[in-house]
Amino acid sequence: MVPIQHIFKLNAAARPGRMIALARGSMYSFQQQGMISGADSFKSSTPTFGKIPYLAMSFGILVGSGLALYHTGSQKIQLEALPVKEPAVSSMGERMSTYIKNLQQEIVNEISTIDGKRFKQDSWQRALGGEGISCVLENGNVFERAGVNISVVHGKLPMAAVKQMRAEASAQLTGEGPFDFFTASISLVIHPHNPMAPTVHLNYRYFEVQDPNAPGKPVWWFGGGSDLTPSYLFEDDARHFHSTLQAACSPHNAEFYPKFKKWCDKYFVNTHRGEARGIGGIFFDDLDHASGDQESLFKFVQDCGNAFLPSYIPLVQRRKGFAFTPAQKEWQQLCRGRYVEFNLIHDRGTKFGLHTPNPRIESILVSLPLTARWMYDVKPSPGSPEEHLVNVLKNPREWV
Amino acid sequence: MVPIQHIFKLNAAARPGRMIALARGSMYSFQQQGMISGADSFKSSTPTFGKIPYLAMSFGILVGSGLALYHTGSQKIQLEALPVKEPAVSSMGERMSTYIKNLQQEIVNEISTIDGKRFKQDSWQRALGGEGISCVLENGNVFERAGVNISVVHGKLPMAAVKQMRAEASAQLTGEGPFDFFTASISLVIHPHNPMAPTVHLNYRYFEVQDPNAPGKPVWWFGGGSDLTPSYLFEDDARHFHSTLQAACSPHNAEFYPKFKKWCDKYFVNTHRGEARGIGGIFFDDLDHASGDQESLFKFVQDCGNAFLPSYIPLVQRRKGFAFTPAQKEWQQLCRGRYVEFNLIHDRGTKFGLHTPNPRIESILVSLPLTARWMYDVKPSPGSPEEHLVNVLKNPREWV
Repeated sequence: MVPIQHIFKLNAAARPGRMIALARGSMYSFQQQGMISGADSFKSSTPTFGKIPYLAMSFGILVGSGLALYHTGSQKIQLEALPVKEPAVSSMGERMSTYIKNLQQEIVNEISTIDGKRFKQDSWQRALGGEGISCVLENGNVFERAGVNISVVHGKLPMAAVKQMRAEASAQLTGEGPFDFFTASISLVIHPHNPMAPTVHLNYRYFEVQDPNAPGKPVWWFGGGSDLTPSYLFEDDARHFHSTLQAACSPHNAEFYPKFKKWCDKYFVNTHRGEARGIGGIFFDDLDHASGDQESLFKFVQDCGNAFLPSYIPLVQRRKGFAFTPAQKEWQQLCRGRYVEFNLIHDRGTKFGLHTPNPRIESILVSLPLTARWMYDVKPSPGSPEEHLVNVLKNPREWV
Repeated sequence: MVPIQHIFKLNAAARPGRMIALARGSMYSFQQQGMISGADSFKSSTPTFGKIPYLAMSFGILVGSGLALYHTGSQKIQLEALPVKEPAVSSMGERMSTYIKNLQQEIVNEISTIDGKRFKQDSWQRALGGEGISCVLENGNVFERAGVNISVVHGKLPMAAVKQMRAEASAQLTGEGPFDFFTASISLVIHPHNPMAPTVHLNYRYFEVQDPNAPGKPVWWFGGGSDLTPSYLFEDDARHFHSTLQAACSPHNAEFYPKFKKWCDKYFVNTHRGEARGIGGIFFDDLDHASGDQESLFKFVQDCGNAFLPSYIPLVQRRKGFAFTPAQKEWQQLCRGRYVEFNLIHDRGTKFGLHTPNPRIESILVSLPLTARWMYDVKPSPGSPEEHLVNVLKNPREWV
């Protein structure tokens, strides 16, 4: 990785209202990707104020597991170098980091114990500021693939990026930035071998942006959730998963579970097929002071995170030894194909992660299954369990 | 499918300079996908001029195999109903349709003969106007999956959609539209079982837009290309594939092959990995009167189309019986995963096709392999054939 000396701000005159934050390392990365050309002036290690022909690709926002920060639609924009400073991390930032690190190890240990195979643990540093640990288990005895990542990342964010990410947060900030940001995030996807055992996904994150005019009082929010994707639907399993999450939510706020359950059903959808990715769970994007004080919400997020093992492990224990036919294994593989479709076509985290400067591809794509399958115009036979699942994916149900 | 009575034009006052063309059938489709809500006023069979809350998702253009037309970033836009008329199709439109239908059958017959298994042939009608034939062979003796599609589609296109699709074409039109359009397209992807035999892709299309003030003189262009994706690189195969395409191009224009070869190398790239999808071929997006008269360019496109079987079949014949190890099969499956990544993340045809109203998912996704695989942080060993391939994908070479 190339060490980062600067962040570049889009010249407002060149593109009013739109800004770009790119660090030196990311420049090189974009160049390799053919997204920026003629950026030779950036090859020196000192900041450069020249014009850079820049070919636009996409909008970007800052997401849990990575930084995506550009963007625009212009052919030529002017970049301006700004010094990078180390941000001050709040004590909540530190506590969330500690919490997700511990949760990661707890989950990795439990999954590893069930499987009998150890995770590969991969620590990485982010040139733009921050670090992470990717834990991966592949071709285990019980699990086809399990990836459990954490990342703790900080850096600079221009106002436009804060706005794109979260309008409510930008309204609380003064000036045009760039602002120091900090994020701590845990995310996992677990795909078991047995088609009767469901795939599960989890992500919880804490985010803060520092207003330079209000030192020590960052704008902050939590986000995340957890959801289940079975190939064969056992209603007991669906009820257990949802009621465990509900039990974690309800002591904090009676509205949380029903609201976050709906949000989950609405977000995890293969819109091109008119089918949910799975049978849902909970999802929330921006839990801040409007929903409760920081301490209570941190407790809520911890309760959700701590509910993960109890919500999922009993389902794996029940189903991992079930007998299944080759046709059922094939159906699971087709379901895996739909999972790949959601993650690569629709999932915002994956999409923005991949368009991030210097994306950590392996950590981002660890959500994909080990194997997947596509077949033309598969229609489950009437009355079959496969058809039953598809019907539920087309019409999400209440489970508690 | 719901019969189509009307196309809706975005009220220019609500969203200056941006238009939307949606037919009745697509409205319902969007509703199901959660992209449009509250469009009850459209449920009557007469045109409606009320306000429709519309949630934006994506830009769209008209692509070979389907219509993708909307877009925007606003929360509420006003739609206005316009009558749909049958477009007049030029004699070139008719001839291209006949050509691609014949080419499809020729390719399907040849692939089927080599495989020993017949294609499933699936004819479909498009509610918005048009038809197609999808031919699919799965789990054959030689081929894992082969999809050969044609579509012949017509309808209405607002000026903004023409502009998004092709600025040069919009400059040749008078008025604001909507304009009658017509497109005829063939596309195929073939994935063999044997890891030594490469995957191949082809797409050729003809497009015309009718200016109402110049009846019988449509604005037209051709597009397309063909490219190869090996899991193991045989340089003889790469040279044969490229030189066959070059031989088809050169009699028409000495600049075509070098120009279209570069274009192909630039387009088919997994930018997030900094790797080409394969070892290229040719690609051109907008061949019109600036490059030659219509008759000559039609002849050129036919020569390219006719070069397909000679460019590819010898490679399959050579490699289909090669011995391979389980490790080599696994590498092929990882390469398939990269193919899926390109098609779902980057390919414009797939992306816009999937965001089309009433997308024909099965025809669009027939480009995906039967099976694919992902593993964490795979690094081919130094000096291995796998590493050799990756090096070439990172640095595209000249083959003729």
